[in-house]
Amino acid sequence: MSKPFIFAVPKGRILDEALPMMARAGVVPDAEFHDKNSRALSFACEDSDMRIIRVRAFDVATFVAHGAAQAGIVGSDVVEEFAFSELYAPVDLDIGHCRLSVAEPSGQQNAGPVSHLRVASKYPNLTRRHFEKQGIQAEVVKLNGAMELAPGLGLASRIVDLVSTGRTLKDNGLEETSVILPVSARLIVNRAALKTDERVASLVDAFRAIVSGQKAA
Amino acid sequence: MSKPFIFAVPKGRILDEALPMMARAGVVPDAEFHDKNSRALSFACEDSDMRIIRVRAFDVATFVAHGAAQAGIVGSDVVEEFAFSELYAPVDLDIGHCRLSVAEPSGQQNAGPVSHLRVASKYPNLTRRHFEKQGIQAEVVKLNGAMELAPGLGLASRIVDLVSTGRTLKDNGLEETSVILPVSARLIVNRAALKTDERVASLVDAFRAIVSGQKAA
Repeated sequence: MSKPFIFAVPKGRILDEALPMMARAGVVPDAEFHDKNSRALSFACEDSDMRIIRVRAFDVATFVAHGAAQAGIVGSDVVEEFAFSELYAPVDLDIGHCRLSVAEPSGQQNAGPVSHLRVASKYPNLTRRHFEKQGIQAEVVKLNGAMELAPGLGLASRIVDLVSTGRTLKDNGLEETSVILPVSARLIVNRAALKTDERVASLVDAFRAIVSGQKAA
Repeated sequence: MSKPFIFAVPKGRILDEALPMMARAGVVPDAEFHDKNSRALSFACEDSDMRIIRVRAFDVATFVAHGAAQAGIVGSDVVEEFAFSELYAPVDLDIGHCRLSVAEPSGQQNAGPVSHLRVASKYPNLTRRHFEKQGIQAEVVKLNGAMELAPGLGLASRIVDLVSTGRTLKDNGLEETSVILPVSARLIVNRAALKTDERVASLVDAFRAIVSGQKAA
């Protein structure tokens, strides 16, 4: 009996765009996956022995990096934040586009050079690295959401967050001042599983073909 | 003009029980707070200059500890996990009861003594501290949710998570094996704000009176 193949997908934003691509790669979760009242954490697939787990984006990377899931889909923001050595992101799925950006209160930009900043973010590693390159030491206040509140309440002078339309920033009196990383969703796989389980290599090929087919179309 | 008074409440479970107590303390968020389509992150209060922010439980503690909110409500699990020196939790609100527990696959309990374990949890500090007391070194895999998946997928042999009815554990073939911490919601305040802003001291008094009134009733 072979080990079940676990595919990890993130809750939220990316999933709606990912499901049609997954279907073309033969990964179709059963009806319970779409039942909002279900308490299940893992789901069977149609015509496949694969199982799907739906977890938070950061946890997708954790499950795959540790080999508890063989493959998954997650934003490049999460891939870059963790930089897990066992996590390999071979296919850019060209969906879930947004950007990781720095924002600050509108009109604050001409405050002159600084050597130290307090920044609110869910991405401490990417934030520190970005400011280090400019010779600025960033003290990161880790928040899990509602970053946009931080400057107005004096918790931080800047935030680093995902930006899509920029509307939430504007609603909170903030302005995007630089882009750290353009973000899109990636197929990620566990490196050891890719070497030892041919189902992983097949899945990578299937997603590659779908993406290049879409680009050609 | 005095600094606006910011009161932080957590999304989810605790909030339904907290709102009636807050109302008795004179903290009543305006109608927009209850509008599920609102994108607002901060809300005015009726008959008061207080503003309410609704953020994730861990972030309630972060805002209050840094003085970006003067007061808030959060579970004792979060207070204990962070152990922020500037965060003071003077009133046990006697709501939001649950417990932080260790769970493992049912029937695994007689595996004998161990010196090292891998544990999946949202609470790395409390988890390490709990196992250290037993002479066990716990390597914590930080997950943000769906902890119950971890043992079945080989990510960890134990989990440390909040348990209420225990039904989710049972559904995932897990058994609660020890309680680390009984949990209830607390009124928390920023220590510096408590010393300098009399509105904070009044709020503490109001919540204390409500809780002792409820106990006497």
